[in-house]
Amino acid sequence: MTPLKNDRLIRALLRQPTDTTPLWIMRQAGRYLPEYRETRAQAGSFLDLCKNKELACEVTLQPLRRFELDAAILFSDILTIPDAMGLGLYFAEGEGPRFERPLRSAAQIDALGVPDPADDLRYVTDAVSLIRRELDGQVPLIGFSGSPWTLSTYMVEGGSSKEYRFVKGMLFREPATLHRLLDKLAQAVTHYLNAQIEAGAQAVMVFDTWGGVLAPTAYREFSLEYMRRIVDGLHREYEGQTIPVTLFTKGGGMWLEDIADSGCNAVGLDWTVDIDAARARIGDRVALQGNLDPCVLYADPATVRERARDIIERFGNHPGHVFNLGHGIHQSIDPENVKVLVDAVHEFGRDIRKI
Amino acid sequence: MTPLKNDRLIRALLRQPTDTTPLWIMRQAGRYLPEYRETRAQAGSFLDLCKNKELACEVTLQPLRRFELDAAILFSDILTIPDAMGLGLYFAEGEGPRFERPLRSAAQIDALGVPDPADDLRYVTDAVSLIRRELDGQVPLIGFSGSPWTLSTYMVEGGSSKEYRFVKGMLFREPATLHRLLDKLAQAVTHYLNAQIEAGAQAVMVFDTWGGVLAPTAYREFSLEYMRRIVDGLHREYEGQTIPVTLFTKGGGMWLEDIADSGCNAVGLDWTVDIDAARARIGDRVALQGNLDPCVLYADPATVRERARDIIERFGNHPGHVFNLGHGIHQSIDPENVKVLVDAVHEFGRDIRKI
Repeated sequence: MTPLKNDRLIRALLRQPTDTTPLWIMRQAGRYLPEYRETRAQAGSFLDLCKNKELACEVTLQPLRRFELDAAILFSDILTIPDAMGLGLYFAEGEGPRFERPLRSAAQIDALGVPDPADDLRYVTDAVSLIRRELDGQVPLIGFSGSPWTLSTYMVEGGSSKEYRFVKGMLFREPATLHRLLDKLAQAVTHYLNAQIEAGAQAVMVFDTWGGVLAPTAYREFSLEYMRRIVDGLHREYEGQTIPVTLFTKGGGMWLEDIADSGCNAVGLDWTVDIDAARARIGDRVALQGNLDPCVLYADPATVRERARDIIERFGNHPGHVFNLGHGIHQSIDPENVKVLVDAVHEFGRDIRKI
Repeated sequence: MTPLKNDRLIRALLRQPTDTTPLWIMRQAGRYLPEYRETRAQAGSFLDLCKNKELACEVTLQPLRRFELDAAILFSDILTIPDAMGLGLYFAEGEGPRFERPLRSAAQIDALGVPDPADDLRYVTDAVSLIRRELDGQVPLIGFSGSPWTLSTYMVEGGSSKEYRFVKGMLFREPATLHRLLDKLAQAVTHYLNAQIEAGAQAVMVFDTWGGVLAPTAYREFSLEYMRRIVDGLHREYEGQTIPVTLFTKGGGMWLEDIADSGCNAVGLDWTVDIDAARARIGDRVALQGNLDPCVLYADPATVRERARDIIERFGNHPGHVFNLGHGIHQSIDPENVKVLVDAVHEFGRDIRKI
């Protein structure tokens, strides 16, 4: 494999010095880009796009042609694992993900197998290999998965939820059943991320999108514990390279210390916590990734620059910051503002290192 | 007016000793009760129910006939003020609140008047007077309003939102315009809550349902500051009685110290913060209200009791705890479990006072 031409992301995740602050953007390959919408239309459905390795590679690379981003992230969905477990993922137009066969009983959960990524998720690892080859060392490729808890919310509810009636009902009524599901999912995610690493992913991230809907003790028991097991089971070195692991719990600002103690290399922050306060709380144990409110990209370019500078100055002249939004970019954002953000982060990232 | 037969709620909100822990339940008059569904069907729409003082009084009293709750809360909606400002509130079945005329420009905002509660919101104060009379001192009556920021999200988005594109776009692009809206809303809420107090409300609460979607500095500037102005402008004593004020920001667990410094008497907690940790952080400055995960009510009675006891023991033997859910009760909860909860809170509340 070609050595990395731009290794800022990997260095920052490992808290090594860099010439400026690296950044990538959650959902950077997405509907705000006209070229993405064109490829998506060509693919058919969103799932068809995820399952076509050439088109998944194409959309992964699209944002890198426009912006000087410091990483590519595999184009895929967090729900590939439940789909491979046989739940029947589909996307109702404008309604988000749904499962044909949600899990509502212990018997259904006990019948689930742990998917073999080489078989059931081959379309993902094939896309990873292809993207890695096409990137040719330009920037590192990030692999990812949903967290066990987050996957379980979709699997038990049958889709997105506002109240989490069924999965939290199970948590309080049949905690042992939910633990058996989470245990299988932790194994599945570990295998899946290791397969992505073997196929070429140079860093991995676990998205715990719904950990923030839990009470603190439930978060530690039903979400963080399973992410910790995943961190323990991952290839942390592969073919002579260190593979950094990032954990991101949206709404997890109160539990940053616990997340940082999981053994991960970096903690993702949404925008509800100030990055200087986060750094003061967890110190130099881990790198931090974040944490611009995605809605800042609706503002004028001067405000985008000012908000980017504020975060970089709050983090200060230390190694270990990867700039990002606090959640995925919205589909109605003007790509011109993304360019403003990318250039601002690199400019202010250089400035802060002179202080 | 009849003196209060049960003044536990008022005493606890003022951090005075009580014989046990008082409780009420957010959305206690709601769809989980068959008698509510019957009255609602009789009224027509949800808004018809809010605007009919006899029926609003009836549903307010219904949960008190079933459970030994320590307070009644006015049956109404948080969006009565924007409706009175002329935005045209309606409820699309199964879709939540919508406004016919959302606010998208500075001109629309500058054209808004501050409603006179005696005129535009008379149906609310009439309901308050009637409920207070019907309660006959059994328990205190809580009045409420949405917070300025929370009201503004609905008014600018035109309804519920997941991304807050328009209102946060305004926040970052035209902050002065949003401040003018929030200033009018703070005046409106102050007049509205004072009118409720004059009509008979014995405690008031401000619901900041969406404060938690803001970054910390934005929360202080665009939400908390306006709640602070409301607290400053309220009747804190009325007809010789102290009127306690509770502020509740859902998702505001990281900012409890700031909320406690607003001048309010009590701070509402959702379930994402442990009440003992909250108490350790803000000490005895204010009372705390909360904080059971509403999904615990899907569990078996033994678990409901155990979770209730956990919160009461975490708070400990101190004055100043009002037990509640961390958010509104779900419509599919079995009323039998509510009875289990109410009885458990009173039982364990007595026990903790013997320690």
